[in-house]
Amino acid sequence: MTLDYDIIVIGGGHAGCEAASAAARLGSRTLLLTMDMAKLAAMSCNPAVGGVAKGQIVREIDALGGQMGRITDLTTIQFRMLNRSKGAAMWSPRAQCDKTRFSEEWRRTLENTWNLYIWQDAATELLFAPAPETNAAPSDNLPDETTTSFNSAPGTISSAAESDADSDPTLRNAPSAAGKLAIRGVRTRMGVEFSCRKVILTSGTFLRGVMHCGASHAEGGRAGDAASHGITESLRAIGFETGRMKTGTPARLDARTIDFEILEPQYGDENPAKFSFSPETKPIKEQLPCFLVYTSKEVHDILRTGFDRSPLFNGTICGIGPRYCPSIEDKLRTFADKDQHQLFLEPEGSSTNEYYLNGFSSSLPWEVQWKALHKIRGFEDLHIFRPGYAIEYDYFPPTQLHHSLETKLVSGLYFAGQVNGTTGYEEAAAQGLIAGINAHRAMKGESPVVLKRDEAYIGVLIDDLVTKGVDEPYRMFTSRAEYRILLRQDNADIRLTPLGYKIGLISQKQYDHFTKKNTLVESLISFAREQSVKAAEINDYLKSVDSEPLSQGRKLYDILMRNNVTFDSLQNALPKLRKFIAANEITPEAIEETEIQIKYKGYIEREKFIAEKLRRLENIRIPENFDFHSMNALTIEARQKLSRIRPETIGQASRIPGVSPADVNVLLVKFGR
Amino acid sequence: MTLDYDIIVIGGGHAGCEAASAAARLGSRTLLLTMDMAKLAAMSCNPAVGGVAKGQIVREIDALGGQMGRITDLTTIQFRMLNRSKGAAMWSPRAQCDKTRFSEEWRRTLENTWNLYIWQDAATELLFAPAPETNAAPSDNLPDETTTSFNSAPGTISSAAESDADSDPTLRNAPSAAGKLAIRGVRTRMGVEFSCRKVILTSGTFLRGVMHCGASHAEGGRAGDAASHGITESLRAIGFETGRMKTGTPARLDARTIDFEILEPQYGDENPAKFSFSPETKPIKEQLPCFLVYTSKEVHDILRTGFDRSPLFNGTICGIGPRYCPSIEDKLRTFADKDQHQLFLEPEGSSTNEYYLNGFSSSLPWEVQWKALHKIRGFEDLHIFRPGYAIEYDYFPPTQLHHSLETKLVSGLYFAGQVNGTTGYEEAAAQGLIAGINAHRAMKGESPVVLKRDEAYIGVLIDDLVTKGVDEPYRMFTSRAEYRILLRQDNADIRLTPLGYKIGLISQKQYDHFTKKNTLVESLISFAREQSVKAAEINDYLKSVDSEPLSQGRKLYDILMRNNVTFDSLQNALPKLRKFIAANEITPEAIEETEIQIKYKGYIEREKFIAEKLRRLENIRIPENFDFHSMNALTIEARQKLSRIRPETIGQASRIPGVSPADVNVLLVKFGR
Repeated sequence: MTLDYDIIVIGGGHAGCEAASAAARLGSRTLLLTMDMAKLAAMSCNPAVGGVAKGQIVREIDALGGQMGRITDLTTIQFRMLNRSKGAAMWSPRAQCDKTRFSEEWRRTLENTWNLYIWQDAATELLFAPAPETNAAPSDNLPDETTTSFNSAPGTISSAAESDADSDPTLRNAPSAAGKLAIRGVRTRMGVEFSCRKVILTSGTFLRGVMHCGASHAEGGRAGDAASHGITESLRAIGFETGRMKTGTPARLDARTIDFEILEPQYGDENPAKFSFSPETKPIKEQLPCFLVYTSKEVHDILRTGFDRSPLFNGTICGIGPRYCPSIEDKLRTFADKDQHQLFLEPEGSSTNEYYLNGFSSSLPWEVQWKALHKIRGFEDLHIFRPGYAIEYDYFPPTQLHHSLETKLVSGLYFAGQVNGTTGYEEAAAQGLIAGINAHRAMKGESPVVLKRDEAYIGVLIDDLVTKGVDEPYRMFTSRAEYRILLRQDNADIRLTPLGYKIGLISQKQYDHFTKKNTLVESLISFAREQSVKAAEINDYLKSVDSEPLSQGRKLYDILMRNNVTFDSLQNALPKLRKFIAANEITPEAIEETEIQIKYKGYIEREKFIAEKLRRLENIRIPENFDFHSMNALTIEARQKLSRIRPETIGQASRIPGVSPADVNVLLVKFGR
Repeated sequence: MTLDYDIIVIGGGHAGCEAASAAARLGSRTLLLTMDMAKLAAMSCNPAVGGVAKGQIVREIDALGGQMGRITDLTTIQFRMLNRSKGAAMWSPRAQCDKTRFSEEWRRTLENTWNLYIWQDAATELLFAPAPETNAAPSDNLPDETTTSFNSAPGTISSAAESDADSDPTLRNAPSAAGKLAIRGVRTRMGVEFSCRKVILTSGTFLRGVMHCGASHAEGGRAGDAASHGITESLRAIGFETGRMKTGTPARLDARTIDFEILEPQYGDENPAKFSFSPETKPIKEQLPCFLVYTSKEVHDILRTGFDRSPLFNGTICGIGPRYCPSIEDKLRTFADKDQHQLFLEPEGSSTNEYYLNGFSSSLPWEVQWKALHKIRGFEDLHIFRPGYAIEYDYFPPTQLHHSLETKLVSGLYFAGQVNGTTGYEEAAAQGLIAGINAHRAMKGESPVVLKRDEAYIGVLIDDLVTKGVDEPYRMFTSRAEYRILLRQDNADIRLTPLGYKIGLISQKQYDHFTKKNTLVESLISFAREQSVKAAEINDYLKSVDSEPLSQGRKLYDILMRNNVTFDSLQNALPKLRKFIAANEITPEAIEETEIQIKYKGYIEREKFIAEKLRRLENIRIPENFDFHSMNALTIEARQKLSRIRPETIGQASRIPGVSPADVNVLLVKFGR
């Protein structure tokens, strides 16, 4: 007997939870297979969501109709908008969460999602069948340029039936290779067999996970949890490449044994914002502080005594670790001259004594960690709940994926999260959401949602993964995006909510809320454009904010473009602005959005211009099975890389490492119009 | 480097949590080693505490100063006093709990217990040293008869320094065997080494745990959790006997797919009581119902189709299962003629859809379980979160223990809970509490606390374990106790709180609360003894409750002894009683206790008389290293059993299976005064 579902999601972490939630809400009968229902969306590492670039991703997930933002809001214990002092493009929301509540809220959400069924067991085998010959739903349909414009409905997708590209099926990544496989089911450790049309694999660090702490190592997917076996094996057997990566986590500390009195607290924002665009969550009222602590030369000296026994340094760990989330021993090596590193002490919840020591990730022998920790000021009497450790796990080089996150080798099989070589809850959740959406759309014969690089960090993330691959755990940074001014946290809804609404993940109510905000922004901008301000009525104010006085009347809009002028302060000086805002009930959100749009107008338009220009390349498609080896004008490296990655457009080809501008020109001559 | 603690508790289940809490609160620097801090005191099987006999144990744990009662009260979602219609000795409190909250409350409690430190890792090795030659604390000092009386301070313990038995050390089970070992520490999976003076092993079903579901089996300590290796091996190496036991758990059901409308609800009590004697917890206000469901012939027929693949029936499982908590397949075999079994559908918490199907424990193939479940009325559209399974694990025959729960082979090593071959959270918690108390007392050179069979179900439990051993998972029943009328749930505080106070687990505040209740009971009894009631003032009332009218005045006490007369109803009829109760602020608890003491006086006194008589045997001690084989008058079987169990008294000897009354007489001639 087998139980049948449309879609099976393997793994209940941040990727799996978003994937299952999206697929089920869109209407697919979905099974979430998890090894432990008590640990859904567990925060295995630090108890925080967001941060630079990652915060933007969470806003995008929320704008598209995902859950991470909402659940973060419900479980926040501290909120900070990072980079407030920098330009709006850099503003990045970050929340400390109550780890236990976060997981519970996810469980409550998933348990009560219609069409979604949870099953507790470990998946140990994927089941395949020959792919059907019939014209399956195209797997990777980039959105059509003509239907996309920045401010209306970017990332627009067209159903397979509507899309005019449909008339030329050779332009699609439809299953084609002879003998290609399709997913047909999953088998579990306890012998249960499920059949399905789509599988989304989100097994995180669990595939053949091994934890290291000094010379000790033990199998496990996470502290306290068993590793998972079988999946890697069944994928290698049919031709998937796999590799090993590693990540690490710091010690967990017992608050009762920390002298907080002498530590420097770091408080949340005075007027905290939140992640979700929905009015249903509220900003947090009572916040908990984090604390700053510092290593010292003495601490470093102790840590160095363990270097010869470090599995990172003595070759025991083969996996590649995250360069940008280095262990403390990595930091000591890289910055050998620094005598101090700043660490953040973060509470794991509001009703636990467990603290996370951000910045002290380590796989040094436990006693070296213990001794070094005790030399940190405030930690003289420290008890720890567990030492830090490193974990090695299997991943699948993500160049084996389409932009839809469907694998190229197996039709109906999607990968999301850490199995793709990424790191971070937010990166995982974003992939899960997209995989969930696309698995559902493929069920319905609809073209996949693929976000472009100028539309979303999520677009940058996935394009980087499938185009460039990874050579270390991939983490999002603002520097990875070409269009940082476009990809702001404040406008994620403008960028993505119309799409979320169109595909069915955003409710009518939320969409109405969104359009209302947009209307308010537009009316405020119109008002600012139309209203003239006389020198006499504004110069006192301008002087008060160190801005040059007017010699003649100007449009309100021009004044608002000035650096020190804010709506907040200007309202008080200018009764007609104050009156307009009150009369039209312009919300603080809408005012903030208006202000950013006015202040950054020049930058925004420049980036849009560049994006439009480059989009030409994105729209020149390369036939799916094109034989790059036949193009002698390409360098040999380019031919090899292009054959491996199989870019769908010249734009994508141009981003493949090893493909030079000269190679791009060759492709343009061949495929350009 | 090793970290040093007084006492290390291995395992964070119900036994381990009580043990660690008690040892730390008594003043020992205690480490609790758990594989997963998120699962402290996890309710691995049904989400309920108490029940017949088990409820009495929880009241005893509370009365002694343990935590289970308090934490149950804080997380109750339904409360019922079972057997209310039977005599007071049979009243048994039972609570459904919110499984997640229960575990959280325990975690909060332990995290905030001074002297208690938690470490997350798996213990994999016990470290031994030769036992010191110096006079170690006596390991098993039965309380001295002369200092014990039922209503004052039963189970009284005397410190080693005070005890007059100290003058004759040969009467003690002091470490003596040449080459005897002492515990010196524990090593973990991640290579951490701890040193200590005492270890309490409470590893439940985790030691080499294997889960079975039909022909499938997989290693694990519990659904979702890894098994533990190394401990059994290190104990066998030094001569411990081990065996295999098995237990099982039913499927977990998704409430959304159950038709509750057609099921029969089972509500909690209208005026729910609670477990803890402390006024700090309150009875639950809003309760959730359970539901009754029934198997049928059709269900049974389907289940039988899986019998040939049942690991229970085809020899795959070698461990012995709990006779009194049988799997559904066991029930079908044992009661082959029954066409229906009643099952209880119990909520796992107030914010989850997970339900527990009490009575349907099974290790049949999952698809047989699935099909059978779907034939149960109300379950036609059922989704399950996981099927039932059986689990096999290592235990240590408990005849290897002293009454203190210290092992006979290794000084300072204690066993508590399922490793001793018991089943049930309550049985585990009780052993944990006693082991925690005694490990601490041994640290201080104080004699162990040993409860007698007429003092507590806990005394019955431990005496049964160490005297009779187990041949199947041991569960408490009222029938196991000789003195059921004495061992009531209502008087657990009278029986044990003075002892809890004396050893330091009961706070002054709680003790004052207890003595105040006692004073109220005594004053009410005195009042009833002194007050005469005239026929005229009471006969109307007596008629109203179908009790024979008085022909002449009688003492109030005599009237209260009558069957249908209750304080509640009598108060209304008798103004002077009402006035006395109001004037003296007699609490409902005190009234209930008084009523039981009056109504059951005859039974209580009879049992006390028998207990006193038999106690003579309990006070005749057998020298520790006595050579039973030298007593030719004993049967060979008796000689073998006595040599193996090494009873400390003739009373204990008399309860050993295989020791006949004639053998007891031989022992009496030898050791009797």
